[in-house]
Amino acid sequence: MEKNQNQEGLTVKKDENFSDWYSQVLEKAEITDLRYDVKGFVVIRPWGAMTIENMYRLYEQALQKRGHMPCFFPTVIPEKNFKKEASHVKGFSPSVFWLEKVNEEDRLALRPTSETAFFQMYSLWIRSWRDLPLKLYQRANVFRYETKATRPLIRAREFYWIETHNCFATKEEAEKHIQEDIQNTEEIMHQKFGIPFLAIKRPEWDKFAGAVYTIGSDVLMPNGRFIQQPSTHLLGQHFSKAFNIKFKDENGKEEYVWQTCYGPAISRILASVISMHGDDKGIVMPFCISPLQVVIIPIFSKENKNKILKECEAIKEKLLKEEIRADVDNSEKRPGEKYYNWELKGVPFRLEIGEKELKEKKLTLFIRDVEKKEKISLKDLDKLKALGEEFDKRLIKKADKFMEGKIVDCKTKEDIKKAIKNKKIARVNFCSIDISGEKCAGVIEKEADAEVRGILANKTEKPSGKCVVCGKEAEEVVYIGKSY
Amino acid sequence: MEKNQNQEGLTVKKDENFSDWYSQVLEKAEITDLRYDVKGFVVIRPWGAMTIENMYRLYEQALQKRGHMPCFFPTVIPEKNFKKEASHVKGFSPSVFWLEKVNEEDRLALRPTSETAFFQMYSLWIRSWRDLPLKLYQRANVFRYETKATRPLIRAREFYWIETHNCFATKEEAEKHIQEDIQNTEEIMHQKFGIPFLAIKRPEWDKFAGAVYTIGSDVLMPNGRFIQQPSTHLLGQHFSKAFNIKFKDENGKEEYVWQTCYGPAISRILASVISMHGDDKGIVMPFCISPLQVVIIPIFSKENKNKILKECEAIKEKLLKEEIRADVDNSEKRPGEKYYNWELKGVPFRLEIGEKELKEKKLTLFIRDVEKKEKISLKDLDKLKALGEEFDKRLIKKADKFMEGKIVDCKTKEDIKKAIKNKKIARVNFCSIDISGEKCAGVIEKEADAEVRGILANKTEKPSGKCVVCGKEAEEVVYIGKSY
Repeated sequence: MEKNQNQEGLTVKKDENFSDWYSQVLEKAEITDLRYDVKGFVVIRPWGAMTIENMYRLYEQALQKRGHMPCFFPTVIPEKNFKKEASHVKGFSPSVFWLEKVNEEDRLALRPTSETAFFQMYSLWIRSWRDLPLKLYQRANVFRYETKATRPLIRAREFYWIETHNCFATKEEAEKHIQEDIQNTEEIMHQKFGIPFLAIKRPEWDKFAGAVYTIGSDVLMPNGRFIQQPSTHLLGQHFSKAFNIKFKDENGKEEYVWQTCYGPAISRILASVISMHGDDKGIVMPFCISPLQVVIIPIFSKENKNKILKECEAIKEKLLKEEIRADVDNSEKRPGEKYYNWELKGVPFRLEIGEKELKEKKLTLFIRDVEKKEKISLKDLDKLKALGEEFDKRLIKKADKFMEGKIVDCKTKEDIKKAIKNKKIARVNFCSIDISGEKCAGVIEKEADAEVRGILANKTEKPSGKCVVCGKEAEEVVYIGKSY
Repeated sequence: MEKNQNQEGLTVKKDENFSDWYSQVLEKAEITDLRYDVKGFVVIRPWGAMTIENMYRLYEQALQKRGHMPCFFPTVIPEKNFKKEASHVKGFSPSVFWLEKVNEEDRLALRPTSETAFFQMYSLWIRSWRDLPLKLYQRANVFRYETKATRPLIRAREFYWIETHNCFATKEEAEKHIQEDIQNTEEIMHQKFGIPFLAIKRPEWDKFAGAVYTIGSDVLMPNGRFIQQPSTHLLGQHFSKAFNIKFKDENGKEEYVWQTCYGPAISRILASVISMHGDDKGIVMPFCISPLQVVIIPIFSKENKNKILKECEAIKEKLLKEEIRADVDNSEKRPGEKYYNWELKGVPFRLEIGEKELKEKKLTLFIRDVEKKEKISLKDLDKLKALGEEFDKRLIKKADKFMEGKIVDCKTKEDIKKAIKNKKIARVNFCSIDISGEKCAGVIEKEADAEVRGILANKTEKPSGKCVVCGKEAEEVVYIGKSY
């Protein structure tokens, strides 16, 4: 395990100053280092990288189970492709990093997202209905020249995500797939990583550039701000027409394919994991993604050092055989320092092993989330896997509880302001999420410093009354929150 | 599994035209697609991507076992950092892609390799001997503006590799680590992927830009050309002095760290795997990295289709439980087409299941490398794992045999020309691999169209006689071959 160099504790409480708490946790638990000399780019240190790898693995397994297959596309996109779909280029152009031109070759963009990379190949690969559905994904780093203030893992100029790009024969199949994407977010981000979310259909003015519509996953941070997690987009035939992606149906008739895409940003989901589950002692890592699930701490004197260390190694081997990620901290530090360090990094379980424990054949087990010590019999170590599952269930439950009461029905702009001030989400009657509603959304943004996020994607909510801003008959019930 | 769209077979034999064979295999087995519209950048399709993921996993496991830890560094390197080590910048500058400058921010390079990214952080992270050794790696895509002809997976402008960057307290430890790197190449590339290599210390004029010395792994391709696989570099204190990476030793004395780096290019190793093991029917994938280890082909008529398919699924589930990567090909194709397709893709084992097989409770097992059919009892399916290990051992043995007799002792330039023409490696008395020998190497390059690759890294070979070019007393026994 990496040597920890930041021994001093967190000097701020999560509830009192979330922003400082977040920065301190990332630095002291050695998730990221912000001192890399380029604005908006951070270094992800081993503890962060190993967590991200575990998150990738779970996410990719789920995608593969649903019939997606991995591929790797070039990081660079030729300008002429990038510009093929008009609203896409309009939306993304301001945030593109371009490469300096070499010789007379085409100008190249660093991918901010890869639709325009994938789709030129799709037009070559897809010929017939037999080639559909085509569901590919890549794990990739993408680049966006963010002009807003960057925040490590939350908004960076380079981040780590998965992007899926899918083609279907009909609009119905494409829309069914959108629901499957939301289900994926639920199964992985919520049921595994413990992050509850609202699946929100975005207003017309806030959809993905080039999409028919966008459904985002809005996650509330402890400071009451929304962060957008995986979003899924119905692209319809916008891109298939621009890139000429056609197939012959069973009757030999040529049609444009229907497309969707989905983009879970793994590094950003990690930001939610850290923020949601962490406490004043640091990170609380879900068992399923923690780089180390059990840390073993030897408690020894000069006399019994070898004996204890040997026993620790034996226990480690036993746990590794059970496919539990375990290690012994045999560094020079005092046990208290070690406890402190691994609690900061959020390791779910700590086993303490000294003379007394060996004699009794019972180890001391510290459980990170509830901060409780228990005894566990040497012969029961295989139970740690089940305890790990319970651990994760507690985190989910706690996170779900955090969301309780967060949505407040608001009848007036004053209500909205108050809700936002109290770090809540306002549910409001609203004229429209078509482009006609943008003006009212602007008023809310100006007066309440909050954003109309959209309407629930999976539940039809009927408004009763007038738009809270313009007073016209409300068509929608929208959710309003402060955003990152 | 992805639908195969290139049903026509290879139209060329590997022995007769390796270059065309290689191109056809990559295309028809759907490893890569060269039609991505940017010179030197290719798309890696699912069959290639899944193989690369498996290769990454094995390689990373081995590195982690040896105490390396993963991290992610930004893809961009500020120009001022990139230029800190004089010979490094001189060596790499011509092949750097630069980003267009935005505002007044520093000019950014796309990493061609990441020493100058890692080392600015190392100077912040390393303080004392307690922080050493520091052994980090990242899996990453890197970018080089190649001016030579690009070849898919072999020489591309973007490729997928692992780079390790390591710091030690002493030169001895650093050099010991170099040996460990070579051992890693042996354990993974040779003993797992079946690619034999010569560990060759490069001549002074051919070492990594910024290194004290470089040891490359030279792999022979079927066309008699060398391809450089993982190389490991002693950087000494060149970079630690340029980046001010110092530590206090146990006596409180400040010293610069000693550094090494190691770079297995996974996508390029895949090129060797395909080239070494493939045959006139296509790829032969090592069992340990094949995306699919067993493909199950149902043989049915209209009457028994459901019964057979059900049985196939049951067998698949059984294999998955044994952690064997298995799938049923239940596509609309005829069995013969399916056989053909999966042989082209190199799946190690094929199980054929029809009425007869079910009755006898014995399946037909086709083994890809030896192209033999056997019977395997339904209750013996768990043996496929052991058969897979044997499969890989056969590949290693065959590859080792390919290398036999490839090295030819040469006394004259004529001998060298003849050896090279016969697709062999010339072993030659040579004046020096110091810079003084560069002129003689130039003569060989001109006259024999071949390259002085260097001397064996792990065996001291004493020359007896004169340099084959200049006639001076030879200091070294060098290996000469044609290179990609």
